[in-house]
Amino acid sequence: MEPQANPAVIATAHTHAGPIETDALIIGAGPVGLFQVFELGLLEIKAHVIDSLPQPGGQPIELYPDKPIYDIPAIPVCTGQQLTDALLKQIEPFGASFHLGQTVSVLREQDDGRFEVATSAGTRFVARTVFIAAGVGAFEPRSIKLDGLAAFEGRQLFHRVRNPADFAGKNLIIAGGGDSALDWALNFAGAGPHQAESVILLHRRDGFRAAPASVARMHQLCEAQQMQFMVGQVTGYDERDGQLVAAKVTGGDGVARVVPLDALLVFFGLSPRLGPIAEWNLQIERKQLVVDTEKFATSVPGIFAVGDINTYPGKKKLILSGFHECALAAFAAAAIVFPDKGRIHLQYTTTSPKLHKVLGVETPVFA
Amino acid sequence: MEPQANPAVIATAHTHAGPIETDALIIGAGPVGLFQVFELGLLEIKAHVIDSLPQPGGQPIELYPDKPIYDIPAIPVCTGQQLTDALLKQIEPFGASFHLGQTVSVLREQDDGRFEVATSAGTRFVARTVFIAAGVGAFEPRSIKLDGLAAFEGRQLFHRVRNPADFAGKNLIIAGGGDSALDWALNFAGAGPHQAESVILLHRRDGFRAAPASVARMHQLCEAQQMQFMVGQVTGYDERDGQLVAAKVTGGDGVARVVPLDALLVFFGLSPRLGPIAEWNLQIERKQLVVDTEKFATSVPGIFAVGDINTYPGKKKLILSGFHECALAAFAAAAIVFPDKGRIHLQYTTTSPKLHKVLGVETPVFA
Repeated sequence: MEPQANPAVIATAHTHAGPIETDALIIGAGPVGLFQVFELGLLEIKAHVIDSLPQPGGQPIELYPDKPIYDIPAIPVCTGQQLTDALLKQIEPFGASFHLGQTVSVLREQDDGRFEVATSAGTRFVARTVFIAAGVGAFEPRSIKLDGLAAFEGRQLFHRVRNPADFAGKNLIIAGGGDSALDWALNFAGAGPHQAESVILLHRRDGFRAAPASVARMHQLCEAQQMQFMVGQVTGYDERDGQLVAAKVTGGDGVARVVPLDALLVFFGLSPRLGPIAEWNLQIERKQLVVDTEKFATSVPGIFAVGDINTYPGKKKLILSGFHECALAAFAAAAIVFPDKGRIHLQYTTTSPKLHKVLGVETPVFA
Repeated sequence: MEPQANPAVIATAHTHAGPIETDALIIGAGPVGLFQVFELGLLEIKAHVIDSLPQPGGQPIELYPDKPIYDIPAIPVCTGQQLTDALLKQIEPFGASFHLGQTVSVLREQDDGRFEVATSAGTRFVARTVFIAAGVGAFEPRSIKLDGLAAFEGRQLFHRVRNPADFAGKNLIIAGGGDSALDWALNFAGAGPHQAESVILLHRRDGFRAAPASVARMHQLCEAQQMQFMVGQVTGYDERDGQLVAAKVTGGDGVARVVPLDALLVFFGLSPRLGPIAEWNLQIERKQLVVDTEKFATSVPGIFAVGDINTYPGKKKLILSGFHECALAAFAAAAIVFPDKGRIHLQYTTTSPKLHKVLGVETPVFA
């Protein structure tokens, strides 16, 4: 029962000679970021989209993919998954490029007024306009909060498994009580190609939010002494010569035990983080980007903010408001991308042969 | 082949002892007016809705019921009819009352801050808040533009057929080249219960925007001398003792002929008219109502304007923008309708048990 590879971890860095040049870069692939692709597309602006999650859809997909949403206009009920699927279908004609499983680490204005953007995966862009549709921020793995522990990230502390072979033959502590923790524990404890030297599953209580079959299988492996399960939390660690050598695990009995390890895998789920957005010199009010209601422009011309991440008088964090914001931001961006076109006129998808061409549909013959 | 009765004509006047008291009155049952019902409903405000057309749906239904719309968010393609049907289903839980086939003739603020509203059908309301979602205005029949002719409206000049029996045994001129003109001409010329004394179909050219079968049938009846078809336009009329006695019809040859008649039926389609809205002392700019972008309030507190009829910096006449405007206007109205509630907090349809109750759906059990 090998866990499915998380697509996020196989998101390859784009290796270009230079950065990707684009008219529009969208940060966030939630419903609003996806619809931003559509509104830009109608104005013939092609977009690149970055998201921290391994798949498009944002919060509704991450937090409640199967829960019904009732307030998308003209859709009496849909799930987060259905909403995302519909938006992906709607933006298909516009061929946006997605860069998933990576967060934006750098956003800097160049002398020519364009924006230099770089991601955690090393992807680099030069963009004429930037749309921040980052919702409550980038979703990042929750971790164990201990001073200095983060320094071992990627060497001995892991929140995702990029390459299972890296863990074969090692002494592992796997922390967490959900499917990810269980699945990887079973994978490394079993007699598979990546069998570890030892596996300790560590969870704060004897109860799991995971498939019952996985929990049962874990108990079997414990009885067969192929792995151990401990109730407790990591409350400290030992290091020697810059290496993590042991975790201090405090159990329900209040006793701290020293548990030797080669690697610590933490699966505590994801939590949103505003992250570097706070450092981009944009005007911020209560962790939201301040925008006007004419263009949904931030305090830096050329950078727009749409959806839950922005604020203005009357703002409600509704997906339908984000859709409106996308439309007006797209028109404002068109004036930057096509400075010689003059005023961009509104055309209607129902009647405009030009928009029909852009959408790749036939213009109906009117009587 | 009797044409279907136009539901507009059977919209009965509500006969109440007094006016209908309501927290919210929506003028306009287009997509935005319908969604206003939804956003008010989520905040537990029940609405009455008025529209000049005989059915809900507004412009998309009236102008292009079967033409595809591509830019409703998360709906890759739909027709005006499908959009309307979806919105009607979405607002079902809120039990709005519709008053169709009538236009608002009076809107006046009372001393108590509420609004007195009356319609062309005699329906009267006292409303705490009013939402003008009237698009480009009320749809009214296009007519023949001749000084003084309008005085015969409802007596000898007609733009809809309320009761076919009224025209039996009379000499009729039916003007127009669409289905309505053809259908009524065939109906009154044929040997049915409402057969006229004579029927002249008048159209400016020998070509129709009507079902080919109707055109063929019309030519048959002309050959059988049961009706006449004339190419021409009404360029004048004769009256005697306050009665319309003849139309002057100018043909393609430039010759004016005097054609006696008892009744003139004009089917030139509908055109929108801002109408009395212009007289309500609301701030207007280029025929649009000026609103703020926080509450979408007009210059009169308690009166909101949403959708194509409003204007503000950046405004685009998009249905999706109207949806956003409805949401923010609803929150502003809630502060008026429930002055003691304090700030109205945003709740989400996905997670709020209170909204689930309002929507009449089950609250899902979260893991």
